[in-house]
Parts: sequence; C-alpha cells; structure tokens
Amino acid sequence: MSEIKWSETEEKIAKQAFEKAYQRETLALIKIVREQASQITKLEDLWYLHDLLSTKRHEIDGKYDYDHSTLVFVFAQLLKQGWLHHEELKGLNPKTLSKISALARI
Amino acid sequence: MSEIKWSETEEKIAKQAFEKAYQRETLALIKIVREQASQITKLEDLWYLHDLLSTKRHEIDGKYDYDHSTLVFVFAQLLKQGWLHHEELKGLNPKTLSKISALARI
Repeated sequence: MSEIKWSETEEKIAKQAFEKAYQRETLALIKIVREQASQITKLEDLWYLHDLLSTKRHEIDGKYDYDHSTLVFVFAQLLKQGWLHHEELKGLNPKTLSKISALARI
Repeated sequence: MSEIKWSETEEKIAKQAFEKAYQRETLALIKIVREQASQITKLEDLWYLHDLLSTKRHEIDGKYDYDHSTLVFVFAQLLKQGWLHHEELKGLNPKTLSKISALARI
C-alpha cells in the first residue's frame, strides 16, 4: 500500500481525520477511566484498572503512529471501531477510499 | 535474620500488623488514584496514572509477601513509611523488636 501518493489536500484531510479519531478515542478512554476509578473500593479493582491502562496505552501508541505506509490500514481500523466516520475521509483519492472501505469490511 | 524464631503469639501479632499496614497502604493508594483519576483531562494525565499504578503494583506485590526470612526488614520499612506504628508490634520478642527498630532508623 506504500505506493499510494497523497496530494497536499489529501494530506490535510488525512491528518484532520487522524486527529479527530485520536481525540474521540482518547476522550472516551478518559471518561471510562474516570468512571471506573470512581468506583474502586479494593485493590483488585485498582489492578484491573492498571491492566486496562496497560492494554490501551499499548494499543493507542501503536495505532496513532502517523505513517503513510500504514495509513490505509489504520483508517480502516478506525472506521471499524467507530472512531472515524466515512464522511470524514471525503476528499481523499477514490482509489485510496475504496481500499480503506474494503479493508474496513474485512 | 532468618534464624529468628516466632512463637505462636508473635506469629499472630506479626500477621495482624502486616495486615493492618497492608490495609492502610492500599486504602491510601485507592484514595490517591480516585482523586487523581477524577482530575484527568488529557491523555498525558492518564499515562501518568498508569506509571503510578505500575510502580505501586510492583512495590506492593514485592513488599507484602509474608515471609519469615524478610519480615523484620519489611516491618522496618513499614514503620519508616508510616504504614505501621511501633505499638502495633508490641508483644514481639524484644530482640526482634530491637532489630526492627534499628533497621527502621537506617
């Protein structure tokens, strides 16, 4: 997929979409953590929260690495997970969009 | 220090003191985590909380391992850190107590 060329406009759209998904996912995580933490009464709950944070940190660090060679895969994943909506990718090359859509259906 | 013999009464006192310190430290940690989590607004704060939990989990798992060969060191540490009070060890062998007190002063 690394042969895809991104125009300046596409680059801007991609970066905005990427940032939007990042904001959505991180804000949702913050909300979950705040809710879970407010209900902690025992050490077991605390370590459960720790495990959740370890997993999410690893996942988010890995996913939000803006890299052209993996961008279509990341966008497909973000669409599937609901952090990004199709209309937010409007303006990208139709070929790129169809690749992303196809991957999102897998 | 492993040559120290613990009578049945001493064993009971040690276990109670150990449990008391554990309860105090873990409840204090839960309070801190709940407070910190309620103030989280950005991802950076979330990862800071994650780092804190990683450190504390490692520390607590290591410290609260009830083992006769290390008990005087653990009690000394708990006294120094304020999770245990001298009077809660009352009833232990005077020799054991003086070892713990000496170690707590280091």
